[in-house]
Amino acid sequence: MEGDTVDHAAGNSTAGENIGREHPPTIADLGELGLLQRLFRYCPSDVVGDDGAVVALPTGQSLVVTTDVLVDGVHFSDRTTAPADVGWRAVAANLSDLAAMGATPLGITVGLSLPGHTPLAWVEGLYQGMADCLAPWGGAVLGGDLCRADTRSVAITALGSVVPQRALYRSRAQPGQAIVVTGYHGQSRAGLELLLHPERGDGVAPDDRDRWIAAHQRPRPRLDAIAALWQILGDGVDARAIAAMDSSDGLANAVLQLCQASGVGARLAEADLPLDPALVAWVGRDRALDWCLYGGEDFELVLCLPWVVAQALGDRLGDGCAIVGEITPGPGVALGLITQASPLALSLSQGFQHFQRP
Amino acid sequence: MEGDTVDHAAGNSTAGENIGREHPPTIADLGELGLLQRLFRYCPSDVVGDDGAVVALPTGQSLVVTTDVLVDGVHFSDRTTAPADVGWRAVAANLSDLAAMGATPLGITVGLSLPGHTPLAWVEGLYQGMADCLAPWGGAVLGGDLCRADTRSVAITALGSVVPQRALYRSRAQPGQAIVVTGYHGQSRAGLELLLHPERGDGVAPDDRDRWIAAHQRPRPRLDAIAALWQILGDGVDARAIAAMDSSDGLANAVLQLCQASGVGARLAEADLPLDPALVAWVGRDRALDWCLYGGEDFELVLCLPWVVAQALGDRLGDGCAIVGEITPGPGVALGLITQASPLALSLSQGFQHFQRP
Repeated sequence: MEGDTVDHAAGNSTAGENIGREHPPTIADLGELGLLQRLFRYCPSDVVGDDGAVVALPTGQSLVVTTDVLVDGVHFSDRTTAPADVGWRAVAANLSDLAAMGATPLGITVGLSLPGHTPLAWVEGLYQGMADCLAPWGGAVLGGDLCRADTRSVAITALGSVVPQRALYRSRAQPGQAIVVTGYHGQSRAGLELLLHPERGDGVAPDDRDRWIAAHQRPRPRLDAIAALWQILGDGVDARAIAAMDSSDGLANAVLQLCQASGVGARLAEADLPLDPALVAWVGRDRALDWCLYGGEDFELVLCLPWVVAQALGDRLGDGCAIVGEITPGPGVALGLITQASPLALSLSQGFQHFQRP
Repeated sequence: MEGDTVDHAAGNSTAGENIGREHPPTIADLGELGLLQRLFRYCPSDVVGDDGAVVALPTGQSLVVTTDVLVDGVHFSDRTTAPADVGWRAVAANLSDLAAMGATPLGITVGLSLPGHTPLAWVEGLYQGMADCLAPWGGAVLGGDLCRADTRSVAITALGSVVPQRALYRSRAQPGQAIVVTGYHGQSRAGLELLLHPERGDGVAPDDRDRWIAAHQRPRPRLDAIAALWQILGDGVDARAIAAMDSSDGLANAVLQLCQASGVGARLAEADLPLDPALVAWVGRDRALDWCLYGGEDFELVLCLPWVVAQALGDRLGDGCAIVGEITPGPGVALGLITQASPLALSLSQGFQHFQRP
């Protein structure tokens, strides 16, 4: 029965219409051309329809490019994640990488692998979420590729532009710089907890619940923090003595990566870590600290800056933005929590070795 | 047993070494960091290690971006395709899209989805094939993303640069222009036939066999044809009256797409279609013609050019490059084969509706 309906649709010249169908349209019903026509609605009309998209760059700018892959069952699940949230998060993760590089978004390309039975509504929801996340920053969907596969996956490549002397690298951290974090950490992990175990949220204020779930489902790339940084620095000041990275793999990981790339050390002051007071009240200080350092997916920025710039940035951003420590000469990568008798040495193997078995 | 070995490797600080292991190293043995370190060998040292790659663009150039996704079991198979060939083909497909846009390659990003049991040798073979295909054109692997998945897939985004007035679009075909094809078509399909059914190749000369299998496994993106076109046109002549597309989905499809995008028609002269004489000798004219028009994956270019430019390009390229017909006013998309009493109307639904069931 279903086969008949699909075959009829496949042979119908009005691909994309849903007439006399017994189920919501799937991408097998539409065919590749029909689906592409639907998805073109999310793209600027002047960049689709060719073998590639042509994007003009402001003169004298460099290009920044970053890629993320999300796989059904690993990074999202139909049972727990709305397609618009999958799209938003995928784009937010890439825009967060652009922010960490000091870049302004130009747009994204999307490589979609989909089983034929994928509902059209899922794909359109995905694109709507991507477009919604891009919209405030002027980025656009620049095209992509579709292919049939057994497992849904979404590969996004984001493109940005940056004035070369304002590209931010991980390797520029210098002893004596302040380590700035742009917002509370652990909120995304808290939102995940509430989604996975709603019953544990009894007693959480509705505002806090909404905020943490939003932090998980709709993280905001901190391009605003980069814009604020450029305002503080003023025109013409270059950024070659600033190091930056996003905290998508956790705050501890970001500090460790910055230190490793720069050949320096760091000391974090536990009392200054960006803990949401409401989160501490809910799960206690120890767990809040664990989620803050290792929870990941907060998509905030970690910057190594001169102290005066760091303080100005904190004043400008507010809302959890904090100086959390200082870059030290090293050598080696060690983080110290001041409440402990001896500094706690952390290693990169904690928390993000995706391929290794638990 | 295997689990023990893997666990040992996961806890070993010398990740990446293969000491006392009972099987060839897999990516689960290496972990994400170990695998990344291996793959960094294929990337310029100044573009990896940050949240994104920074690429300087020549002043006044536009960016061209294109994406392809390849999935195990759909586009390649361990049983029939060496990993280096998967990598080569994936890059060649993207560079072919850049050529069709008139662009010069800057590099690629790679989004890899891999099961943990994927042999390291497969991933390194893949990257070697990608690097080999990029090398002649000066492009580089600019980074990417790795994630665990049940199915292997490779999402490649290629970046190129083009002087804005020399970007080539599908929509610029004009009545009276010559339709030029840069080389023989049907060779890739012939190579596939020989790989799938070696017994059918009895009597094929070894040189022809090697050439057709190479056309399938190691297609050459026709960036050389674009360089030749710019030489013929000379400095300063813009390309806004030239239409182009690659023939990755078949020669017939490319002509149809060009006509549809430009609102014109076309007439092909059957006698001028780029058939390899040795292929006609092997499978007969009818099948060679079918493979030429619909076989796909030849990764040649189809260009709509003024006749004098078309003739100069044919003289320059040789080797199957031919004027195969002329753009007509249309309206509508119709291809005529001169041996038929009435022109054969072809439609876009033939041959590339990936999602529709057979």
